[in-house]
Amino acid sequence: MVKKFIVGVIGAGRIGKLHIENLLGKVPDISLKIVSDVNVDDKLKQWADERGILKLTTDTNEIFTDPEINSIIIASSTDTHTRYIQEAANAKKNIFCEKPIDVDINRIKKTLEVVKNEGVKLMVGFNRRFDRNFMRVHEAVISGQVGNPQIIKITSRDPAPPPIEYIKISGGIFLDMTIHDWDMARYQAGSEVEEVYASGAVLVDPAIGKAGDIDTAVAVLRFKNGAIGIIDNTRQAVYGYDQRVEILGSKGCVLADNEATNTVRIYTAECTNIDKIPYFFLERYMESYATELKYFFNCLQNNQDPTPSGEDGLQNVLVAMAAQKSFKENRPVKISEVDK
Amino acid sequence: MVKKFIVGVIGAGRIGKLHIENLLGKVPDISLKIVSDVNVDDKLKQWADERGILKLTTDTNEIFTDPEINSIIIASSTDTHTRYIQEAANAKKNIFCEKPIDVDINRIKKTLEVVKNEGVKLMVGFNRRFDRNFMRVHEAVISGQVGNPQIIKITSRDPAPPPIEYIKISGGIFLDMTIHDWDMARYQAGSEVEEVYASGAVLVDPAIGKAGDIDTAVAVLRFKNGAIGIIDNTRQAVYGYDQRVEILGSKGCVLADNEATNTVRIYTAECTNIDKIPYFFLERYMESYATELKYFFNCLQNNQDPTPSGEDGLQNVLVAMAAQKSFKENRPVKISEVDK
Amino acid sequence: MVKKFIVGVIGAGRIGKLHIENLLGKVPDISLKIVSDVNVDDKLKQWADERGILKLTTDTNEIFTDPEINSIIIASSTDTHTRYIQEAANAKKNIFCEKPIDVDINRIKKTLEVVKNEGVKLMVGFNRRFDRNFMRVHEAVISGQVGNPQIIKITSRDPAPPPIEYIKISGGIFLDMTIHDWDMARYQAGSEVEEVYASGAVLVDPAIGKAGDIDTAVAVLRFKNGAIGIIDNTRQAVYGYDQRVEILGSKGCVLADNEATNTVRIYTAECTNIDKIPYFFLERYMESYATELKYFFNCLQNNQDPTPSGEDGLQNVLVAMAAQKSFKENRPVKISEVDK
Amino acid sequence: MVKKFIVGVIGAGRIGKLHIENLLGKVPDISLKIVSDVNVDDKLKQWADERGILKLTTDTNEIFTDPEINSIIIASSTDTHTRYIQEAANAKKNIFCEKPIDVDINRIKKTLEVVKNEGVKLMVGFNRRFDRNFMRVHEAVISGQVGNPQIIKITSRDPAPPPIEYIKISGGIFLDMTIHDWDMARYQAGSEVEEVYASGAVLVDPAIGKAGDIDTAVAVLRFKNGAIGIIDNTRQAVYGYDQRVEILGSKGCVLADNEATNTVRIYTAECTNIDKIPYFFLERYMESYATELKYFFNCLQNNQDPTPSGEDGLQNVLVAMAAQKSFKENRPVKISEVDK
Repeated sequence: MVKKFIVGVIGAGRIGKLHIENLLGKVPDISLKIVSDVNVDDKLKQWADERGILKLTTDTNEIFTDPEINSIIIASSTDTHTRYIQEAANAKKNIFCEKPIDVDINRIKKTLEVVKNEGVKLMVGFNRRFDRNFMRVHEAVISGQVGNPQIIKITSRDPAPPPIEYIKISGGIFLDMTIHDWDMARYQAGSEVEEVYASGAVLVDPAIGKAGDIDTAVAVLRFKNGAIGIIDNTRQAVYGYDQRVEILGSKGCVLADNEATNTVRIYTAECTNIDKIPYFFLERYMESYATELKYFFNCLQNNQDPTPSGEDGLQNVLVAMAAQKSFKENRPVKISEVDK
Repeated sequence: MVKKFIVGVIGAGRIGKLHIENLLGKVPDISLKIVSDVNVDDKLKQWADERGILKLTTDTNEIFTDPEINSIIIASSTDTHTRYIQEAANAKKNIFCEKPIDVDINRIKKTLEVVKNEGVKLMVGFNRRFDRNFMRVHEAVISGQVGNPQIIKITSRDPAPPPIEYIKISGGIFLDMTIHDWDMARYQAGSEVEEVYASGAVLVDPAIGKAGDIDTAVAVLRFKNGAIGIIDNTRQAVYGYDQRVEILGSKGCVLADNEATNTVRIYTAECTNIDKIPYFFLERYMESYATELKYFFNCLQNNQDPTPSGEDGLQNVLVAMAAQKSFKENRPVKISEVDK
Repeated sequence: MVKKFIVGVIGAGRIGKLHIENLLGKVPDISLKIVSDVNVDDKLKQWADERGILKLTTDTNEIFTDPEINSIIIASSTDTHTRYIQEAANAKKNIFCEKPIDVDINRIKKTLEVVKNEGVKLMVGFNRRFDRNFMRVHEAVISGQVGNPQIIKITSRDPAPPPIEYIKISGGIFLDMTIHDWDMARYQAGSEVEEVYASGAVLVDPAIGKAGDIDTAVAVLRFKNGAIGIIDNTRQAVYGYDQRVEILGSKGCVLADNEATNTVRIYTAECTNIDKIPYFFLERYMESYATELKYFFNCLQNNQDPTPSGEDGLQNVLVAMAAQKSFKENRPVKISEVDK
Repeated sequence: MVKKFIVGVIGAGRIGKLHIENLLGKVPDISLKIVSDVNVDDKLKQWADERGILKLTTDTNEIFTDPEINSIIIASSTDTHTRYIQEAANAKKNIFCEKPIDVDINRIKKTLEVVKNEGVKLMVGFNRRFDRNFMRVHEAVISGQVGNPQIIKITSRDPAPPPIEYIKISGGIFLDMTIHDWDMARYQAGSEVEEVYASGAVLVDPAIGKAGDIDTAVAVLRFKNGAIGIIDNTRQAVYGYDQRVEILGSKGCVLADNEATNTVRIYTAECTNIDKIPYFFLERYMESYATELKYFFNCLQNNQDPTPSGEDGLQNVLVAMAAQKSFKENRPVKISEVDK
């Protein structure tokens, strides 16, 4: 039987492997043809072999030039994204690209231009939009159940900071970590950000400060539709991966709490205990990665433009840039100041 | 200003004092005239003095014969209840009596006859019916929101057993402790019990077994309307005073959980902690005692018959008797077997 | 690479397919060689083809006689279980069999004898033991965190009754539905049942009564270690698939609530809304099916005897038989009365 | 018996009456001697009579010059606070004053000077510090259970806006409504505010905008100890009076949720329902008013300085002033800019 979508995957690191497993097990009518990675070693070969992946390569051109392949998943390092998106677009292949598209606004804009001219579809992997809880929040908002959004409140806290070496090349907390929250805030507000005020501090690890970054951050967003956003981040919430979203609207409030590890309560003579919330982002968002891929291919199937789009990817980076500037200058910064 | 209801209180022990404080602070249009107790010592005098209670006596006749007093609250020991109810009724005074009315079915019946003949009102103090949570459950049931009741499930667990000396004279767990649950089950089922199967064991303290009682009990009830009840009791739930009610109906299920000590959750690297549920019955049911008294006087005001009525008091004792027999003979027992 | 466990699956109905998908996607080091079903039609062929299953047959002998196959999963209809278990045991293959083993106690006993003599391993598919919540309850119990079990309370309610045709051949609610709860109660109590009292009624659908069954049931269990169990069942909880377990112990209480559909709360001017609990048993227990298969093969790997064992399967049926007798005769029945 | 504390109350409006009822019913060893109000009408006379209050006056001097009175509760309108505090202090009486002390920083400072010179005690009525939930949060913080505070997050939303006439004289949302949150943030952070950024909008009612105020506000606080605060307010949360506090610390997170109206959940075929959270601030904070008065007299008894102190009252107004300036100029404002 011939499958409709023949897929190539660029990048077989942690997130690339996750996408591949979802493609194989959870997305129907897909055929995975080629996987490329900068480093094809025995371990990767064995991993691919166990999953029945027929072709591994270090040469991405094999993917771009394969006439059968019509969809490409880009899960390589961020600095390669715009190049691969452009090459894929030039090869007339639809694209699913991990976030962020890039950290340079002009490069992103030029890339989106190429995508537009070639007429292919592009989706950026802001997977949290596909978390069942946050989708349910969105549904409550767009159905009108809570009225017009007035305050968008996002709590997004990592359980532990990444290695300092990673921090140094991360682009800073607002681009590396808050990027998900800019996207979530825009998604739930249903409006673009006009102005951002960002504040923060080094409260977790002085080494993060020495590396030129902060580890605790808050931001206030002003949306074009009048709504206000507030986001708080930390690199280290020792009690687990804390991910909550709340929308106050004119008719009510909708709130998504953390996923629980289990539903068990233990009552003792001292207190009542509940197990910790899941610690790691893959545990929490596992399902969302499969849901986003299914959605992407469903859009291709129905010739719809998937979101988060390339424009979403651009806007999220613009907000991050404005937040960085705001934090540095300790003043609210309009998006128009960084989008020239 | 002359108050409409002039009240006498018989019995100023723990529960009598509680009723007095509620009368003074929370029931409007009430004047407390006389308090009687078998033991009027200096401590009680001071307690009464601080609350502006004008008259303390050891002679209940002063209450029964006072022409101004029109309502009597009986909070003396159980063995005096039927006598005082009859005297009060003969004196044409309305009566609020603590539960249980008595432990002898014939005495109860004779007393209810007197009350009926004298045409006064009688309410029995099954205060849990006035707990805001269980009232809310009842509202969901009688409004039809959960449909016809099918399973009535009650969890009722004390935090610690009473002294062995108390156990010995308590009448047994089914009459002393489960009596509240028989009443709650009948209240929520909206029907009388037809048959009961009771089981139990000594799992908490062997001394309770030596005293001829059990400390852990379960019962299955068959109601005349077809509903089934299940109750579980223990004399010792070390984690606090566990009081829950659940009604499965044809259109849904309504469930009242325990009251929390506070709404605080503490998330740490080990687990999430919630403070223990309140330990003592007065903490949990404090509000219900005031609500029941307000309701009683409101019924008098509007010339309505208050419930739980004397008949409720009788039925609860009948179910307890059937449960005792069921436990002893290890077989289901019909109420008609003990109500001859 | 040669896999350690070469597996044959008998029965490719709903539950068989579920096991097959778990074998393919979630159990490591497994090779699925043959699938048999009484009805191999085009639809099944396509389903198998899409999953890369190489051999489909209607002849179970191809599985029993295949020298490579060392483990067999039996997911065929209940009336075939004992025959296939015996054939598999005679062929020296390890066995995972769906519950119940059979409805005839003597046939079960004879079958377990064969399994024992052949020295193969047998596990019975009481999957709820592998639900993450109920496993967590068990952990709290066996770790001593809540002390000695005193009351085991199980709520187990289906969202909607099965077709009347199914009811007629189901063996009755105590064997068909409560069978899971007998197993859960024994698992959590850590003890065997000595006596059972079962009660019930037709409250959901008179047609169920006409078919000779009941649709609402409660049971009280006495365990050999002194603990007491209470179970309540209904064929129709319109609000979803209600599955809760609670253990009161001497040092505390552990309680597993229902899994939520999501963590979202919607606060409006009228009330607060939470989405319904999942409706269907596959949604709720999906994960447990994969966990039990992983556990089964892990036991084989480490040469451990898996549980729930054949003896567990037997005990659960014995309790069901005693419950049926108890309900019919309206009296507590000892297991010894039905295990002659 | 002579009571230790003879009390005069100035102001018998809503909050004054609440304090009086708490004094009479819930604070031990107190004697209420005189109540003054600008308007002593028949309704107030009857109210006082029913509570056994012996003396009502329109002349506050009767309180200040009464030699027996040693403690004064000021619950009159805000514009009279500093005058009465000074007169009470000059009369050597201890003072409990409703918040805010005043809206003029210099008047507050001068008043605190008088209090200090006269050597009397002054407590300001920020009652939310005495809410059992927020006290429990504080306990988790000061006990070190959640480590050093890093993010203080306060949600404080009124169910409905006050009348526009009130808005006009309220001093603005930051002084009228957020004043409680400035105090809560400082209380939980255990540190003074250094800088505030405030943002807001008119999203609820354009009439509020016309009156020169906003109805939706957020603020970011920087504390001297490095912690960051975030507050969100609305004048209209249609789902009830939403009051939550959360502290992220280096060792965990503590969170106080809203008080529930009851513990009942209703599961239906459509969804699960929970009753609305209480709508009105008196319902939510009733208990805290009694607790704060008990604490105040307990401090007097033990010769301890009560908090929130006059200095707390001052700091809260300073933060409000900085927030107003921040909102107007759309930039972060240091407290030192408004405290000259």
